[in-house]
Amino acid sequence: MTQTRHVFFISDGTGITAETLGNSLLAHFPNTRFRHHRMPFIDSVDKAQDCAYKITDAACESGVRPIVFNTLVDPDAAGAIREADALVLDLFEKFIGPLETELGQPSTHTVGRFHGIAESQDYKRRIEAINFTLAHDDGVSNTDLEEADVILVGVSRSGKTPTSLYLAMQFGIKAANYPLIPEDFERNKLPGELNRYRHKLFGLTISPDRLSQIRQERRPNSRYASIENCLAEIEAAQRMMKRESIKWLDSTTKSIEEISTIILQEVRLEPSSY
Amino acid sequence: MTQTRHVFFISDGTGITAETLGNSLLAHFPNTRFRHHRMPFIDSVDKAQDCAYKITDAACESGVRPIVFNTLVDPDAAGAIREADALVLDLFEKFIGPLETELGQPSTHTVGRFHGIAESQDYKRRIEAINFTLAHDDGVSNTDLEEADVILVGVSRSGKTPTSLYLAMQFGIKAANYPLIPEDFERNKLPGELNRYRHKLFGLTISPDRLSQIRQERRPNSRYASIENCLAEIEAAQRMMKRESIKWLDSTTKSIEEISTIILQEVRLEPSSY
Repeated sequence: MTQTRHVFFISDGTGITAETLGNSLLAHFPNTRFRHHRMPFIDSVDKAQDCAYKITDAACESGVRPIVFNTLVDPDAAGAIREADALVLDLFEKFIGPLETELGQPSTHTVGRFHGIAESQDYKRRIEAINFTLAHDDGVSNTDLEEADVILVGVSRSGKTPTSLYLAMQFGIKAANYPLIPEDFERNKLPGELNRYRHKLFGLTISPDRLSQIRQERRPNSRYASIENCLAEIEAAQRMMKRESIKWLDSTTKSIEEISTIILQEVRLEPSSY
Repeated sequence: MTQTRHVFFISDGTGITAETLGNSLLAHFPNTRFRHHRMPFIDSVDKAQDCAYKITDAACESGVRPIVFNTLVDPDAAGAIREADALVLDLFEKFIGPLETELGQPSTHTVGRFHGIAESQDYKRRIEAINFTLAHDDGVSNTDLEEADVILVGVSRSGKTPTSLYLAMQFGIKAANYPLIPEDFERNKLPGELNRYRHKLFGLTISPDRLSQIRQERRPNSRYASIENCLAEIEAAQRMMKRESIKWLDSTTKSIEEISTIILQEVRLEPSSY
């Protein structure tokens, strides 16, 4: 391990964009320890100068130059940041120029991209999708299922709920989810009214070992969590999904980001921002 | 309005990073209509070549060069993309070099940053936080409240639930939330066991007009949604928060990203990735 490097994410909005890209870049340097500082809402030159002082202080204190991911749009504010004793990576500056040339028009240089986002149609759709998804979690309601963009099915604890919420929150997708339970396998029928919405169904499966482990954390030493029961439920669920021609994926080693991206591809859902 | 420009987001993972930054750059060109194409899981040179053909097809079809946000790490695959007839903006190439120089070490050039993320501690913490937040939505449970990182309070429909879920999903913060209801104002006491967790409380308030509008959508023409009732509830809630020295913010015109970022600053919560 080398020294700790201070990393600053500077934005006139929330800084979440800067941090997302910054983290994915820093992940390529696993041998360095980074200490993160988020500096959101830097919407004036004065605030930018304060940031620059903090960055220079961190440089003095740690003895190495901090790394700065800068997304300030205002040229004077961005200039103040570049005065700091640091490696300043300017996310907008690098790309706005080429985009202006390519598109043959100046950029708006709007400060505070996130301000006003709460009034946008996309944002409203995301919030509506979150409310819909919460109201249709775990098969609690058959109401308005025709409004669902996708309905996830799978045995209990196969990842349906967090995936549904991610689809809603990130992409504005109305995602309902239904558990497949032993009673469904005995009746040999899809639960509730799902038959009517077969074209919207997407299945999640999971390895029996992993499922048993997750269920043990919830209900230790239960029949529900036993490896035999998990194996039987998963086999029955996969048989049912095959018979009903439901597409599915194995969630065992996948993040909710990966699962959601695959679902978007497979069911050709268009995220709200498209 | 000018012509539609095709925009491609190319990644060996989910492409969500590329898309987040790309969208925030394109937002500075509101007069151009963009048509988005997400190309995730491009983890071989063959797949990259296929992408390049699709990009060139889109160029021919539309008569203007597409814009490509490329995050491919593999040099051969990234090279294949650059062969396409397009403006290729290379998010990693621009920044990995300066970082290597600054840190004095080569980057790992790991393909598929998102693979294996599901096994990481950060990821597990996020999923745990989502489960905690769902189990502690709308005051449904007092159990394990000592585990909460923050407890949001506010009148019904002031934005507590989507904000709690965003805090959990994006930052791995265990966020419970409690409604403040007329009974609490009559008793003149915080609900449930919140008194014990006063240091974790954070309040959301909202303008009476906006609140009435949101509630009308749920229960049209109800007393619950009437402007008089909304005004009275909000005044009572703000009085209670002042008396109990609970910090709060007005959610009326703010997105869940903005609200969450402010809460992180105010209560000095450290996101799990820090």
